Amino acid sequence: MSTLPQKESWEPTTCPGLDSTQDPGSCCDNGPERECSRKPDQKLYGVGDPTAMFSSGSSDLSSRGSVIKWFWDSAEKGYRTYHMDEYDEDKNPNGIINLGTSENKLCFDLLSRRLTQSDMLQVEPSLLQYPDWRGHLFLREEVARFLSFYCKSPAPLKPENVVVLNGCASLFSALATVLCEVGEAFLIPAPYYGAITQHVYLYGNVRLVYAYLDSKVTGPETRPFQLTVEKLEMALQGAQSEGVKVKGLILINPQNPLGDIYSLGELQEYLEFAKRHSLHVIVDEVYMLSVFEESVTYRSVLSLERLPDPQRTHVMWATSKDFGMSGLRFGTLYTENQDVSVAVASLCRYHGLSGLLQYQMAQLLRDQDWINQVYLPENHARLKAAHTYVSKELRALRVPFLSRGAGFFIWADLRKHLSKGTFEEEALLWRRFLDNKVLLSSGKAFECKEPGWFRIVFSDKAHRLRLGMQRVRQVLDGKSQMTADPLSSQMSQEPSIQHE
Amino acid sequence: MSTLPQKESWEPTTCPGLDSTQDPGSCCDNGPERECSRKPDQKLYGVGDPTAMFSSGSSDLSSRGSVIKWFWDSAEKGYRTYHMDEYDEDKNPNGIINLGTSENKLCFDLLSRRLTQSDMLQVEPSLLQYPDWRGHLFLREEVARFLSFYCKSPAPLKPENVVVLNGCASLFSALATVLCEVGEAFLIPAPYYGAITQHVYLYGNVRLVYAYLDSKVTGPETRPFQLTVEKLEMALQGAQSEGVKVKGLILINPQNPLGDIYSLGELQEYLEFAKRHSLHVIVDEVYMLSVFEESVTYRSVLSLERLPDPQRTHVMWATSKDFGMSGLRFGTLYTENQDVSVAVASLCRYHGLSGLLQYQMAQLLRDQDWINQVYLPENHARLKAAHTYVSKELRALRVPFLSRGAGFFIWADLRKHLSKGTFEEEALLWRRFLDNKVLLSSGKAFECKEPGWFRIVFSDKAHRLRLGMQRVRQVLDGKSQMTADPLSSQMSQEPSIQHE
Repeated sequence: MSTLPQKESWEPTTCPGLDSTQDPGSCCDNGPERECSRKPDQKLYGVGDPTAMFSSGSSDLSSRGSVIKWFWDSAEKGYRTYHMDEYDEDKNPNGIINLGTSENKLCFDLLSRRLTQSDMLQVEPSLLQYPDWRGHLFLREEVARFLSFYCKSPAPLKPENVVVLNGCASLFSALATVLCEVGEAFLIPAPYYGAITQHVYLYGNVRLVYAYLDSKVTGPETRPFQLTVEKLEMALQGAQSEGVKVKGLILINPQNPLGDIYSLGELQEYLEFAKRHSLHVIVDEVYMLSVFEESVTYRSVLSLERLPDPQRTHVMWATSKDFGMSGLRFGTLYTENQDVSVAVASLCRYHGLSGLLQYQMAQLLRDQDWINQVYLPENHARLKAAHTYVSKELRALRVPFLSRGAGFFIWADLRKHLSKGTFEEEALLWRRFLDNKVLLSSGKAFECKEPGWFRIVFSDKAHRLRLGMQRVRQVLDGKSQMTADPLSSQMSQEPSIQHE
Repeated sequence: MSTLPQKESWEPTTCPGLDSTQDPGSCCDNGPERECSRKPDQKLYGVGDPTAMFSSGSSDLSSRGSVIKWFWDSAEKGYRTYHMDEYDEDKNPNGIINLGTSENKLCFDLLSRRLTQSDMLQVEPSLLQYPDWRGHLFLREEVARFLSFYCKSPAPLKPENVVVLNGCASLFSALATVLCEVGEAFLIPAPYYGAITQHVYLYGNVRLVYAYLDSKVTGPETRPFQLTVEKLEMALQGAQSEGVKVKGLILINPQNPLGDIYSLGELQEYLEFAKRHSLHVIVDEVYMLSVFEESVTYRSVLSLERLPDPQRTHVMWATSKDFGMSGLRFGTLYTENQDVSVAVASLCRYHGLSGLLQYQMAQLLRDQDWINQVYLPENHARLKAAHTYVSKELRALRVPFLSRGAGFFIWADLRKHLSKGTFEEEALLWRRFLDNKVLLSSGKAFECKEPGWFRIVFSDKAHRLRLGMQRVRQVLDGKSQMTADPLSSQMSQEPSIQHE
C-alpha cells in the first residue's frame, strides 16, 4: 500500500493540536449523542441518539412519522439555500457551487453514450412482470461475475448469494431491520458517511455506536484518523457498559469521508475482532472502483482467501459512486448467509427496481471491454486530474488535508480557521462558505469529534472546481464577496445533515 | 351504475347457504386472527395477527428478521411447485398455468412497441444524479395532469401533492409507518388483497382489522359482499373494545378480489364514516383504468367535488395493473396533506426509482394519443373478451361468481365443492387444482370468512386461458388427470400466501 498521497498531503506540522476547550467530554449528556471519555480531550466513543434534537410532532402523523418528517425538514433546511440558487454555467453563473454532495460528475458523456446504445432498450414480457424479489437471475449472475472479477475473489462468487435492490440506502435499512431488534446498535468508526444514521434508524429503529477516530498521529507507523482494533474494543465495551446491545460492525472501504483504504492486515484484524464478539460485519465497498491512484493497492473483503466469519460478513456495492449514477438506484448485497439474504429479499418488495433497469444493468456490467478500456481508465484519469487540482489549491492555501487516492473527496483540516475550536464556529464557517456561494460538508455531519474538518468533493468539471475553490479561498483569506447576514448565520447553527 | 354483470353472473339460487359448521365464531382465539361474532355463523370482524403461525427463528437474524424471512418462506412454499413447473407453450406445455397472480398479460405487444420507441432512451445528467426524493418535478407534473384527466378531478391536481415511488407495496409500507405507531391498525373490508398484511406489517408493525363481508344478499338493493357503513362501524367498535387503536381505513376501488366498484354515494358514505372517527383513508385505485365494461360508471375519489376530510384522504395509483407492468415498479401517492407527503418522501430514499425510468414514465403518461386511442381501447377489448370466455366457462360449470366488469379476476363460489365447508377442504381443493396444473388463489389468502371462494385471473392469452379452464373443469368434474399424492396434499395444508 502506497502511503504517498497521505504523506504528500498530510502536513501535521501545520495543524493545530486538539483544542481542549472543545466540547469537554461528558458522560451520557443530553446532546445528540452520549459521549464518554477518559480525559477531557479524548472522547472514545458515542452512542447515537438520532432524535435528540427533535422537538415537535404533527397531529396527522404518528410519533415516528413526525421524526421521519423532521429528518427531511432538517436536511432541507441546510440544502434549501443551495437548491434555491444552484449554479448553472449559463442560467445562474453566480449560483452556489456544490462541493458538498459526493457525486462523480466527470463522466456523464461516457455514461450517456453507453446507456443510449441500442442494446439498452429491450422490453421482454418477463421484465414487465413480477420479478424474483432477489433480482432477476440473469442480473444476479452478471453481478456475481462482475464482483468476482473486480473484487478479485479467490473462487467465483455465486449468483444465489447476490440480492439486488434500489441502492445501498435501502440495503442498510433492510440489514438493520433483519439483524437487529429495535434499539440495538451497529458499531461504526467515526467520522463516517452520516446518512447511515437515518438508513438504519428511520425504518429499523437501530442506532449507531461511534468508535471515534482522531487526527493525532501516535507513532511512525500510524496515520491520522487511523482505525485500530483497540478503538473498536473500547467503543464496544463502552456501549455494553451502558446496556446498549451491539449486533454488528459497519466498515466503509474506501472510507467516506476520510478517503482511507484499509490494508489487508487491517481488514483481517477488524474481521477477527468482529468474529471474537460474534458481530455481523457490513462492508460498504461502494467506492471500490474509484481508487484512482495507481500506486494504491485496494483489497476488497471478497478477495480474502478465507473470511474469518463468512456467515456474518455482508458486502454491499452499488453503481452510484463507481459508475457515477446515484440517480440510477442500483445496489447489491453479497452474503453467504442464506437466512440473511432471504430476509433481505423478503423486504425487497419495498426496494425493488424496474425489470427494464435490471436488464440495462446486466448489459452494462457484462460489457467488460467498455468498463476496462473506456470507462475506468478515463474515469480514473479525470478523478486524478481533479484531485491534483484541488490538492494543489489546498496546499497553496496551507490547508492540511487527508487523501489516499480513492473516492471523490478530500478531508480538509480547517481547524486553524476556528478561533475557539467549537462546532458552533464550524457551523458558522460552513455558513460563510455557503454565503460565498460554495457548499461544503462540515465534519459534524460525519460525527467527527474534532470541530473544524470539512469534506471537499473534487469529482466535478474543471470550471466548476475552479470557481468553487476560488470561493473557498476568498472565505479562508477573509475576502469573501458577501458578508454573512448575522440573522441568517444565526439561523444556520445547524448546517445541513449531509445526505450523500 | 350498471348492475348487469353482477346480475348476470351472480346466481344465488345455486349457492349453498352459509354453512354453520364452518369455523364456529370464537372470540380472541389463537388462530391467525381473533374473530368476534354475535352468532356462530356471523363473524363481524377480526383483528389480524400476522405472525400467529410463525414458529422458529434463525440465530443470525433478529426476531423481526426471522418473521420477515418466514413470510418469504411461507409464500415460497406455495409457489415453489409452480415456479419449478411453469407452463411454457414450447418448452413446458404440461407445466402449470397461472390463473392465480393478478397480472395483465394481454398487452405486452402494445407496451413493448411503445416502450422501445426512440423517445424512451434519454440520458440527461440530472437523471443520473441524486433526485428530489418525491420524484423529479417533470414527472410529478405529468402525474398530476394524468390523474386530473383520468380521475376527472373537478380542478387540476397539483404536482406538489404528488409523490412517486417504486410501487404501491412501498407506499403501504411508508404510509403505515408515518401514520401509525407500532401495533396500531388500519381497518379494511375483507376479503382484500392479502399482500397488504405484509406491506403494513414487515417494516411498519401495523396490523389490519377486518370488517368481514359475506355473500348473503339481505335485500333487493344489496349485492353479495356489499360493504356498508354499519359493517365498518361494528368492526371499528369491536377493535376498540379490544384496545386496538385504529388509525385509518383502507379502501380498494375497484376492489381486489371482488371486482366490486363503489358508487358515488357509497364512496361518500365511507369517507364520512372515516371523518366521523378521525380516520385517515387510504384509497387504492390501482385498477381504475381497468374498468372494461362500458356500462359501468367508475368514480375515483379524486373526482369528488368536495372530499369530506381532504387532509386525511390519501390516494394511490400505479402502472402495475392499469398498464400491465407489475415489474416496472412505479406507484404514486396523491395527498393534500403536506406533513404526510413530506414524511412519505423522507422514506422514499428507500423506495426510489431510477431517473431513467422516471423519464420513461413521464413520456408514457404524457402520450394521451397512444393511451386513449391505442392502449386503453385495445386493453379493454381484450380484457372483456377474456372475461367473457371465462364467465361462459364458469356458467357452463354452474359455478356462481361475482364480477362487475373491472379488474383482472372473477370471484368464484366453489363452496358446493367442499363437503364440510372448512378452510382445510378449501386448501385441499386448491392443491387439487395445482396438482392438475392450474394455480388459483383461494379465499383464505384474502381473509375471506367463508371457505370455498376462489379468485380466478382471466387477463391472460386465449390459449393459456383455454388450457387453464379445461384443467379447472377436470378438477370440478372429478376427472383430474393426476390424483393428488396424499403426502403432498398433507404438506400443503397452507396454500400459498398469494402476493399479487
